Amino acid sequence: MCHACVMDSVKARMLGTSEIGRRALFKGALGLAGVAAAGAALKPAPAMAQTPGQMADMTHMLHPDFPTFFGEQQFWEDQLFNFDEHGFNLKELRVNEHTGTHVDSPMHFSADGMSVDEIPVDKLIVPLAVVDIRARAAENADAQVTPDDLRAWMDRHGDLPAGACVAMNSGWGPKIDDPSFRNADGEGVMHFPGFHVEAVQMLMEEADVSGIAVDTLSLDHGMSPDFATHYAWLPSGRWGVECLANLDAVPATGATLIVGAPKHRRGTGGPARVFTLF
Amino acid sequence: MCHACVMDSVKARMLGTSEIGRRALFKGALGLAGVAAAGAALKPAPAMAQTPGQMADMTHMLHPDFPTFFGEQQFWEDQLFNFDEHGFNLKELRVNEHTGTHVDSPMHFSADGMSVDEIPVDKLIVPLAVVDIRARAAENADAQVTPDDLRAWMDRHGDLPAGACVAMNSGWGPKIDDPSFRNADGEGVMHFPGFHVEAVQMLMEEADVSGIAVDTLSLDHGMSPDFATHYAWLPSGRWGVECLANLDAVPATGATLIVGAPKHRRGTGGPARVFTLF
Ligand SMILES: [Zn+2]
Ligand SMILES: [Zn+2]
Repeated sequence: MCHACVMDSVKARMLGTSEIGRRALFKGALGLAGVAAAGAALKPAPAMAQTPGQMADMTHMLHPDFPTFFGEQQFWEDQLFNFDEHGFNLKELRVNEHTGTHVDSPMHFSADGMSVDEIPVDKLIVPLAVVDIRARAAENADAQVTPDDLRAWMDRHGDLPAGACVAMNSGWGPKIDDPSFRNADGEGVMHFPGFHVEAVQMLMEEADVSGIAVDTLSLDHGMSPDFATHYAWLPSGRWGVECLANLDAVPATGATLIVGAPKHRRGTGGPARVFTLF
Repeated sequence: MCHACVMDSVKARMLGTSEIGRRALFKGALGLAGVAAAGAALKPAPAMAQTPGQMADMTHMLHPDFPTFFGEQQFWEDQLFNFDEHGFNLKELRVNEHTGTHVDSPMHFSADGMSVDEIPVDKLIVPLAVVDIRARAAENADAQVTPDDLRAWMDRHGDLPAGACVAMNSGWGPKIDDPSFRNADGEGVMHFPGFHVEAVQMLMEEADVSGIAVDTLSLDHGMSPDFATHYAWLPSGRWGVECLANLDAVPATGATLIVGAPKHRRGTGGPARVFTLF
């Protein structure tokens, strides 16, 4: 059986086994037709790839009470027109760039790093590697992703895919509407997981990684006094995503992350719509 | 040769023929591995699908002078922190939801239609059909996509794919930084192309379409006195995208559109990051 036929047989076996909504994602072709068309003066070609697929939304809903790193409101809305009076609805929004499920661009923690509009598309649609530290974080809210966690992932799943995003699943996503998401103690110090600076140093030195993502409010763990991970990672020209949702729904490897980063000029980041395909 | 082997052979032929940046998009698998993992308690599976792909960014950069339907500024930014003084950069943004490359949710033109956060994910990652009216629009800025245009597309390319987005390529995208994008006459009436109401009626009655997209400022053509297309289309529970960029780069059929719609609660729409894969 040829390589592609193995794929087809796996696909056939998978049909009906998943608990996540499934559909023929690329019905009409994940553009083998399109590739043909673009290569040959837009001539139509028959659809050939019937690749089934799953998709997941990795984005929390944004609203005025969304939890924030600084603890103060960072999203406001003003209804400028309403259907009853004007025949249509329209709002104006005010938002701190670092609110909701959002991107940190390199410029967020550097004098002149890449802004969010400058991140190349092929760094925003990338393989996803999920590092699961839920068990440890359930015991210790100050847990961090360490080089040992990355080595354990690689021992199990092989090398990190080229250009990947490495995401921390600390189990924090489902806490989003609860005070335990910020988890501030009596002195206002927050306790939630993040990436240890040695882990991102390892990613920079030993792998080809485009970005990191966390299901918490910060790339650094909550009690960090110095943003060590932000300062190590972002100035290197790589991005971060904070407050990622729904990591429980996606596999440790094999998914593709689509970071729908905002594209405003010289932005330091901003609310993003993030999907996975797998 | 089996169906899947035909795909592989097409892929092999395509390598090196495209003018658009190409890479092994789903290197490490468009998640056949992932499907296996999710179905079987996250067990890793070897990467099997080596599907090459192309991607395009369909999003204009947003900035304070971005052209608007109403002709007034709709995007503002305020730098709250700057690297020299505070050690990091951070802005607060203010934006009218209908600014830049953006989504119109059903609620934009209905009393209680779906808001932007309520649009299901599988209506945001959909097959793309591009209707090219560039030649006619170059002669007449008031040109509209008509039922005849849709019939001509189907005669050439077959039925519209289920759940598709139908996009108008009027040639307006490259005008984005020029007054000819709004193209207002001496009396302030705008002249740019849009969808004729009869075309969207046909799409609602005869096809299964999730959304429509335009490369201009409005689903209706600029001189429309009554938003007939908005009022016919959006209350039906379907979405629109306005100010789509880069339609010249994608094939008429075979691409997958990814609408990175914002996800704020009860939003009537908002700036979106839009990609295509093909
Ligand atoms: Zn941030
Ligand atoms: Zn709009």
